[in-house]
This record gives sequence, structure tokens and C-alpha cells, in this order.
Amino acid sequence: MAESAALVEQAIGTLIPSTDLAEAPLFEAMRYGCLGGGKRLRPFLVLTSARLFGVNLECAIRAAAAVEFVHCYSLIHDDLPAMDDGVLRRGRPTVHRQFDEATAILAGDALLTLAFEVLADPATHEDPKVRCLLVSALAKAAGGHGMVGGQMLDLIAEHETFDIGAITRLQRMKTGDIIAFSCEAGAILGKAGRPQHQALRAYAHDLGLAFQIVDDLLDVEGTEAETGKSVGRDAAAGKATFVSILGRDRARAQADMLARQCVAHLEIFDGRADLLKAVAGFVVARRT
Amino acid sequence: MAESAALVEQAIGTLIPSTDLAEAPLFEAMRYGCLGGGKRLRPFLVLTSARLFGVNLECAIRAAAAVEFVHCYSLIHDDLPAMDDGVLRRGRPTVHRQFDEATAILAGDALLTLAFEVLADPATHEDPKVRCLLVSALAKAAGGHGMVGGQMLDLIAEHETFDIGAITRLQRMKTGDIIAFSCEAGAILGKAGRPQHQALRAYAHDLGLAFQIVDDLLDVEGTEAETGKSVGRDAAAGKATFVSILGRDRARAQADMLARQCVAHLEIFDGRADLLKAVAGFVVARRT
Repeated sequence: MAESAALVEQAIGTLIPSTDLAEAPLFEAMRYGCLGGGKRLRPFLVLTSARLFGVNLECAIRAAAAVEFVHCYSLIHDDLPAMDDGVLRRGRPTVHRQFDEATAILAGDALLTLAFEVLADPATHEDPKVRCLLVSALAKAAGGHGMVGGQMLDLIAEHETFDIGAITRLQRMKTGDIIAFSCEAGAILGKAGRPQHQALRAYAHDLGLAFQIVDDLLDVEGTEAETGKSVGRDAAAGKATFVSILGRDRARAQADMLARQCVAHLEIFDGRADLLKAVAGFVVARRT
Repeated sequence: MAESAALVEQAIGTLIPSTDLAEAPLFEAMRYGCLGGGKRLRPFLVLTSARLFGVNLECAIRAAAAVEFVHCYSLIHDDLPAMDDGVLRRGRPTVHRQFDEATAILAGDALLTLAFEVLADPATHEDPKVRCLLVSALAKAAGGHGMVGGQMLDLIAEHETFDIGAITRLQRMKTGDIIAFSCEAGAILGKAGRPQHQALRAYAHDLGLAFQIVDDLLDVEGTEAETGKSVGRDAAAGKATFVSILGRDRARAQADMLARQCVAHLEIFDGRADLLKAVAGFVVARRT
């Protein structure tokens, strides 16, 4: 995972070069929001799923960077004062704290735009049909019924009571859909057959949910020093989470069960998907 | 122009349907920010340039709606308190005034994302290469060295002195590049030859500049009742504009000269581009 993170970090640095032009502060804010850490889980999933289908590494890295741009833009906008008002992210001041609010809004906008520019570029795949599929799938996962819709639900959840079904849908939209895209990207790039594509979807679905349950657990159990971000925010905001509804023990058991399901979905790949299986274990065991 | 505006208005309503799902407020904010008026200049340019090359109307309307989504998202984010803090837009409260700030941020994000989803969809053009070219060109025009970069420069211009060259670049990025894309979209959809493509680019470049000079003039000369938005904001913010540097008379003369150049660029189309020629006249004569 460290190896793939280094590759993607390098690609991000190249795709968002510093500039001497007058708009330099925008690009510095984009770099600040994207470089310097993070688990890089989504890029790792893109690279690992792409490897299952023998996809050229350069192509896969570009798709991985595009997903990370979308993820980082969502963190920048999510941290804004009008949203979660986050102060710390990855152990550093959030983008609007380090720069200013207007720059943070624009840096997020530019990153989202850049993600699609990167995917549509011939360097990402020689077949324009594949590139269009990537753009479509990422836009759906990131859009009004995907990630952005999930963030809207998250805001609504602050003053409405969500039951477990509503929370599961919220989390699937907010984080699950982009995680699912990350796994599917490899299948799209590799023109995978339907059964393999479906297996990756099912894996990603359960992985995303397990990931979110552990996020909720860390918000309760973790420290700022460990996680590198503000903790205890959900409880402070009175937000219903998997943990507030299920309790810590059942939430933990649910995450473990989902991790086992993840592994089962990958049997179709025989032994070739061991790395993805290991990710499921990592996601539930992580402390950050 | 009214006819094309009605077609695009209808397409926007279809592409952003109201929903009963929990994320409904997001979709209402997206509809509010996109429906109900505006000059629809950019969609008109897409439809009119597409007609030059015999492009299927349904395809052109989708591209026109995508450009309008990007334009409307930029207005929503530009109006945010951390940016221009706009109160009125098209004679109505701005999106963050009508809904709230968080919803406005997310509605803008979702509209930008939807623009790329629409362009990448096979319904926009049967050839995936054309769809990729549209995504690439729109992303470049809207991104960090295009529209978003221009907005960054606009913020910097509040506390730095820009000369006429810097202001021209700012305006080309902030509004010119998307206007240029609107004209180019027809050429891309119609697989136009290089000379025709170039002629439309040159036309769009001058049109965008003329448009912005008139915008600056209206900010000085216009009333809120006429323009439907707050006026006098540039002067209040101490921002350098074409008008503050050139003076009203020279700014007006410059706009008129650009409009004549626009017409000249279109000679290559013989009599078939009369509508685009008329647009140049409209852009400099408009009071709104």
C-alpha cells in the first residue's frame, strides 16, 4: 500500500504542477489538499483491481489520481465552515484554515474538474469508449445521488432522526459509491467480463460499508493524535451513526462480518485477489 | 434566442428531475440555480454553432445543457458569502439566500459533476471520441487555468493592481473560455475541419471579451431592476475593470470594435452564420 501511495503521490505532483502564473495560489491550495499523506485507499483499490486484469500501470495511476482528486475535493468542501467546519485534516490545518475560504472552495472545484480532464485524456486509455465509461461512472458515483447527495443527507441527519436503513443509504452514497468506483475502475480499464465486474462491485459495496462503520468507531474510540483529524464530532452534532444506533460491540461485529463477506466475493479470482482480500482486513483493523 | 432558451430550459428540467428521495433539497437547489431565466447565451452559442455543421438537435441540446450547468454552478459558488456575497441573481435571491450556504456549495458541486455525466453519455453523441473531446475541452475551459483560475484572479484583483493585460487574461479565463467552449462544442459535435474550428475559436474569443467589457459597463451604468443582479460591486470592492482602466467611452468603443471583428471571423461560413453575427450585436447592445 505504501508503494502504491508513493506512485500516486508522484502522479498527483505531476498532474498539478506548481505554476508561476498569477493563479499560483489556487494550484498551491490544490497541491496542499492532495499531497502530503492520507491513506490513499481509493488509489490503492484502483491499482490493485487494475492489476487483476493486466492493465498498463501508467493508465491505472492516472485513474487512481482522478479518484483521489475527487476524494480530496470532497474533504476540502466538507471541511468548510458552512459544512463540518473542520480544523484538522491529516494532522495539518484544513485548506480553508491554511489559505482562506474562497480559495478552498475554488481549489475543490478545480480538483473535481481536473479529475474528469484526466480521465478523458487519451493517456488514460487508448479506447475512448473506456474513457467515457470512466467519466460516466465517476460522475454518477460523485454526483447528486452519490457522494454529494450523501453529504446532503449528512447535513439533514443533523436535525432529523435517521433509522439504520437511512444511515446505510447515506453512507453508501457518501463514501461507498466512490470506493465502489475505485474497484470498478480496474474492471473498466481492463474490459473485464460481467461476472468479474459484479464480484468487484459486491466486494466494494461491503468494503465501503465496513470502512464507514470503522470510521464511526474511530470517531468515538480514536484520538486526534492517532487519526490526524478532529474526533467526537458526530456525537457533538447529535448525529445518528452506525455506532450510536447499533452500539460499539454490534458495530464492530458488523464490520468484521462485512470484511469476511468481502473475502468471499473474491473467490471468483482464485488466488489472484489476495491483496484485495488483505485490504478488507486492513480496513477493519485500522486505527487511523 | 428565446426559442433556444425554451428548448434548453426544458432539457434542464428533464436532466435534473425533482425527486422524492431524502436528498430532494439538493435537487431543488440545483433546479432553482439553473431554471427560471438567464440569457442562456452559452446554450444559444452551442445550438447555433452546432447547426452550422448539421448536428442532431437532441445531441446539441444536451451539450448546451452541460455548458449551462457549469455556468450556473459557477454563479452559485461565485455568489457565496466567502466569494462575492451576492444577494440577487436573475431578480431572485441567490441560492445560498434561498436555501443555505452548505446546500449552495453542494448544489454547485453536483451541477459541475452532472455536466460531465451528460457529456460522457452515449445520448450526447454516438462517437465516444467526440464525447471525450467534449469532456476534455469543457474541463480545460472550466478548470484551474480557465474559469476557476479566473475566479481566483478576480479575488486577487481585490487587493492587487492589475494592468490591462492582466485584466484581459483574467476575463478571458473567467468568462471567455466557457464562451469559447460553447462555440467550439458545435464544431466538435459536427467534426468540423480545422479552418472552421479556428474561425469559431477566434469569434468566441472576441465575443467573450466584448461580453465582459459590457458586463463591466452595466455594473457602472445599469440598475438592479434592469440587470436583475446587484450592481456597483466592482467599484465598491475597488476592483480594476476594463471600465476603471479604459474609462467608459474607450471601453464602449473597444466592445464595438470587438463585435465588428467577431463578424469578420465568420466570413468563412459565407451567409450561413448570420445568427452568430447577430449575437455579437446583441452582446454589445444588451442592457441586462
